[in-house]
Amino acid sequence: MIELIEKHRSFNGFQEIYKHESNSNKCTMQFAVYQPDENIKAPVIYFLSGITCTEQNFVQKSGFQKYASKYKVAVVVPDTSPRGNTIPNDNDVKLGHGAGFYLNATQEPWSFNYNMYDYITKELPQIINGNFKFSNSNVGIFGHSMGGGGAIQCALKNKLYKSVSAFSPICSISQSKFAAKVRINYLDNEQEYINLYDPIYLIEKKERKFSQIKIDVGLEDEYLEDLYINDFEKACQKFNQKLIIGKHKGFDHGYYFIQSFIEDHIKFHISILN
Amino acid sequence: MIELIEKHRSFNGFQEIYKHESNSNKCTMQFAVYQPDENIKAPVIYFLSGITCTEQNFVQKSGFQKYASKYKVAVVVPDTSPRGNTIPNDNDVKLGHGAGFYLNATQEPWSFNYNMYDYITKELPQIINGNFKFSNSNVGIFGHSMGGGGAIQCALKNKLYKSVSAFSPICSISQSKFAAKVRINYLDNEQEYINLYDPIYLIEKKERKFSQIKIDVGLEDEYLEDLYINDFEKACQKFNQKLIIGKHKGFDHGYYFIQSFIEDHIKFHISILN
Repeated sequence: MIELIEKHRSFNGFQEIYKHESNSNKCTMQFAVYQPDENIKAPVIYFLSGITCTEQNFVQKSGFQKYASKYKVAVVVPDTSPRGNTIPNDNDVKLGHGAGFYLNATQEPWSFNYNMYDYITKELPQIINGNFKFSNSNVGIFGHSMGGGGAIQCALKNKLYKSVSAFSPICSISQSKFAAKVRINYLDNEQEYINLYDPIYLIEKKERKFSQIKIDVGLEDEYLEDLYINDFEKACQKFNQKLIIGKHKGFDHGYYFIQSFIEDHIKFHISILN
Repeated sequence: MIELIEKHRSFNGFQEIYKHESNSNKCTMQFAVYQPDENIKAPVIYFLSGITCTEQNFVQKSGFQKYASKYKVAVVVPDTSPRGNTIPNDNDVKLGHGAGFYLNATQEPWSFNYNMYDYITKELPQIINGNFKFSNSNVGIFGHSMGGGGAIQCALKNKLYKSVSAFSPICSISQSKFAAKVRINYLDNEQEYINLYDPIYLIEKKERKFSQIKIDVGLEDEYLEDLYINDFEKACQKFNQKLIIGKHKGFDHGYYFIQSFIEDHIKFHISILN
């Protein structure tokens, strides 16, 4: 059961927001769906957002709807963590609400609710397939920062996704300061579990290859050093994973960067999914 | 003296936010400026936002930067009222902070700070001319809701503006429920002052004509009846002011509507200003 809570005409389609009870996260979750005008068997791209974001940031700030409408692709944007008064949280934005990191926590008290990996890769696709008439085989995934790394790690382990790209992704869960508290609190610093969600490790493990992965990043990104994109690039070179990487002078980490390159990313996915 | 407080690369240009001390409003004000890459003598368009907005809403949500960059036009976005702990306010969003209505208040305690008409039409253009190298003659103005009406009333009285357009404008300050508290509190219900800022009255007064005025509105706009756009249309017909009006099925009052038609508005202004 999903409940429509917002619906707005946007270009030739509708930007919608839904809520539902999540089995994985054991709380009410919200997600956004853009439905283009001709959406039967439309390809679907999932967008995973960064730390602190809800399902709203990307749909309000990226301007993706113009291209989702033009190329007739559905775009699904989940929240970034379980939320609510009863859900464990922390004062640091890098842990708890808004920082689910698209993994399944193994440690209490987080493990009861923080199962974003299952939510993104299993529960949400089932909900989308059960409630919309989009294609269930032409599916891509992309994201930003925490969600850029999340998109890559989800894609490298799940055949559901045929295309993957990222804006300014956190490529090392093992090393990034962004994930320091998450490693300890969600995963008890167990390297075996950390590796499961680490884009660089997964490239080195060669579980799955894509014809190409696309990454864009701003060279004035205030978090550039902590993203480990150069290490990801080296891992891709070493293990023959083709990577199309754009390093853009002057751009920072935020949505003004995303809005400037969102058209390229939608076209990248469509070129593979169509 | 203006102080840069935010600067982000966006497409081929920069989205910037400034603050300064306003003589008109006697408080610190913020405004946004988009500078395209080639901005010497660039045309300038002012965008006036709706009730509750700051200078941030339009720059974060409309996606205008793509077209400002492409057509090499500067876009200036002021806040919608004076703000701060010492500035008179009200619990109703339609009065006080976020609801300056682009007029000069005549009644205390509002009249000391609420002088948005002078701020928009005199002080801010002087600041822009003094601090940037944009054209000081190729100037347009547009806006949304309260700011759509604001853009029209400012344009109809000031030769500074060569082009004017609006999204879902409040066309009757005399009749709209949005302006009910403003009429009483800012203007003591004096019809003479209300008329100064009333788009329909100003069309009927025939002070100034434009080769064309452009308006777009959504037919699912939740405030449609209270905008008095049909009355504005009739006034334009009666007094031979050419109006290009788009009434769009399915669209509502919000930023998803604006983002869907922002390209058309930028092109409209550029076609006149260039």
